[in-house]
Amino acid sequence: MINFDEAYNLVLEHSLDIGIEKVDLPTSNGRVLAEAILADRDFPPFDRATKDGIAINYAAIEKGLKNFKIEAVISAGMPQQKLGDSSNCMEIMTGAVVPENADTVIMYEYLDINDGYAALTKEIVKGQDIHHKGSDVISGTVLLDKNVRIGAAEIGVLASVGKSEVLVKKLPKVCVISTGNELVEVSETPLPYQIRKSNTASLFAALQMQLIEAERIHLKDNKESIGKELTHILKTFDVVLLSGGVSKGKFDFIPEMMESLEVKKVFHRVAQRPGKPFWFGIQETQKTVVFSFPGNPVSTFASYHIYFLPWLRKSLGLMQKKEVVLLEESIEVKLPITRFVQVKTQNRKGAIWATLVRENGSGDLTSLAHSDGFICLGPRETEYEKGEPVAFISTKS
Amino acid sequence: MINFDEAYNLVLEHSLDIGIEKVDLPTSNGRVLAEAILADRDFPPFDRATKDGIAINYAAIEKGLKNFKIEAVISAGMPQQKLGDSSNCMEIMTGAVVPENADTVIMYEYLDINDGYAALTKEIVKGQDIHHKGSDVISGTVLLDKNVRIGAAEIGVLASVGKSEVLVKKLPKVCVISTGNELVEVSETPLPYQIRKSNTASLFAALQMQLIEAERIHLKDNKESIGKELTHILKTFDVVLLSGGVSKGKFDFIPEMMESLEVKKVFHRVAQRPGKPFWFGIQETQKTVVFSFPGNPVSTFASYHIYFLPWLRKSLGLMQKKEVVLLEESIEVKLPITRFVQVKTQNRKGAIWATLVRENGSGDLTSLAHSDGFICLGPRETEYEKGEPVAFISTKS
Repeated sequence: MINFDEAYNLVLEHSLDIGIEKVDLPTSNGRVLAEAILADRDFPPFDRATKDGIAINYAAIEKGLKNFKIEAVISAGMPQQKLGDSSNCMEIMTGAVVPENADTVIMYEYLDINDGYAALTKEIVKGQDIHHKGSDVISGTVLLDKNVRIGAAEIGVLASVGKSEVLVKKLPKVCVISTGNELVEVSETPLPYQIRKSNTASLFAALQMQLIEAERIHLKDNKESIGKELTHILKTFDVVLLSGGVSKGKFDFIPEMMESLEVKKVFHRVAQRPGKPFWFGIQETQKTVVFSFPGNPVSTFASYHIYFLPWLRKSLGLMQKKEVVLLEESIEVKLPITRFVQVKTQNRKGAIWATLVRENGSGDLTSLAHSDGFICLGPRETEYEKGEPVAFISTKS
Repeated sequence: MINFDEAYNLVLEHSLDIGIEKVDLPTSNGRVLAEAILADRDFPPFDRATKDGIAINYAAIEKGLKNFKIEAVISAGMPQQKLGDSSNCMEIMTGAVVPENADTVIMYEYLDINDGYAALTKEIVKGQDIHHKGSDVISGTVLLDKNVRIGAAEIGVLASVGKSEVLVKKLPKVCVISTGNELVEVSETPLPYQIRKSNTASLFAALQMQLIEAERIHLKDNKESIGKELTHILKTFDVVLLSGGVSKGKFDFIPEMMESLEVKKVFHRVAQRPGKPFWFGIQETQKTVVFSFPGNPVSTFASYHIYFLPWLRKSLGLMQKKEVVLLEESIEVKLPITRFVQVKTQNRKGAIWATLVRENGSGDLTSLAHSDGFICLGPRETEYEKGEPVAFISTKS
């Protein structure tokens, strides 16, 4: 049995480079960017009016002029115009190109417009209300680095530089496997000694949030059929997530079976609760990574967030999240193991406080729905004190 | 012009009840539950072994017995068995039903097994390692309340009680409209005075995160065609998000056009920056809600998060998020308006600190990609101080 830090680091050491692919812009939403994005031209690409009003040459004001003849009206989408007489003005709309021979925009709120003339009603400043060409970025500037998660803001940037196709990290092909003869389909009415498959439904939903459409397969506790199916699965997928079949029971064939299929055990059993019987390995020829989680709902759910998500982030080139919360109450940790305790968090004046969620052992699914995540409490002699900052693993985002 | 609090409350007052629908379990992921979920039976549904080992009758230990003859092996998925002789034991696997006439489970780690007998090697406690029938919840207990967002944990609960179909809140039909003759498609190479459509791409992506597949429509600045298209749009959609066309320019027909289509203006212009020219209205016959955002990228993006998302949450029956962060530096707010300032946040020892993101006016799209959200600074005489808690609107989740 190894400790949690060792297990966590071993999992990360086995991250995969799954490769990159080109997808269209809307599909890139939520994916990880695999190329740096440069400005294809200056932004803004021209001196752009930021208000509706008039464009003037400020020299006219310096000469004492306060009333300007309107030469024309310029709207967004029109080519650049030229102010013919620098004592005149042109009406200009937000987003339009400031005309040649003009250098200042004055909004309608500062003007009286009558009979083709615009009269100043306020003091103005030379150059005001113009968003100058290249003032945000100049052509060639890096706008987005690679290895960032693409969201709505990034989509806006990608659109503005014309990336109708985007290079992103491929997502792993994931197979989620349930084991155990006691499991029946969600749509079935279980017999008294049976239960419905909730773990794989939950894992499937969690993977969907990562934009991964997993394949779900159920294996009956039968060595022969498990062997045959696993052989195929290991060839087809990048990652296999198993739930159940890894404790010490007589029908827990998985570790043995894995080794016979040349999946190298990296470790089995971690000094943690929940999730102690976690088995982790890699098929060395095909580089298939196998996460074999304990079958209890809380163990599976916790292990997915504790191990699989950081593995996925590393494989995609993303930074790990480091979240910390403050303990609302003190906790004693007696055993020489790392504990993951369900909590509900609350933002109070900018600090994140964590209240323990009552949970009833590792079979209690409902408590997970009432938690925001797990706090991670490493083994130590003294109790964790109220107000102490501790590491937090979110399960709600 | 109204102030921000008034505008925010008016938007929420116009939330819509869009109705409910039944979807299959995997599709319910990320949606809002529209029914309370009850336990359809006790959980666990039987006295369930939580370890692999043996099941015994504790009375035998009280009589001094330490070595138990193994009567049978019970695995998960088998009907309940009966321990024939209370001096004997049965091997039992995690997840299996504890046999009649047994009350305690002892894991293999505490046993020596030889020649059909299991000998105790440790002290044990009566009733240990059994997850008792109904100890998590009894049949009929409410497991999930309605009006919660369904995530992976909730999917697990729904699966366990057999909800292969789930009643969820309908999502609104949303139309995202861009306006302005200066806009060209993302795939086009713009002329010097043109720019690509980034706002609607960004709004579309943001709505996708809410599981809303919006329709995107572009309107040229032409009164007649705008009128015709808007008439159809107002009949077809629950919500219309417009970007641009609401400031004081000569080609900003939208407010006028809306009123001619019997869309009642609720307000136009808010004492805030960015986003001042925001126009909000409702078509009273069809109850179509119209958010007409200013056309600048930062204004559109900010307004979507400040107004539309809370409106959506209210319409779906979700609680509003109340996030607070601590200011990393002091900020002066001179004008009598509410300011929304882009920040990057950092969790330091459980407190969330916000650093201002350099932004270059409301045209600067790139800054949005480098921000985690906006802090909301209401107008006041004194500066906001370093370390002060302020309201925060996340744009990254």
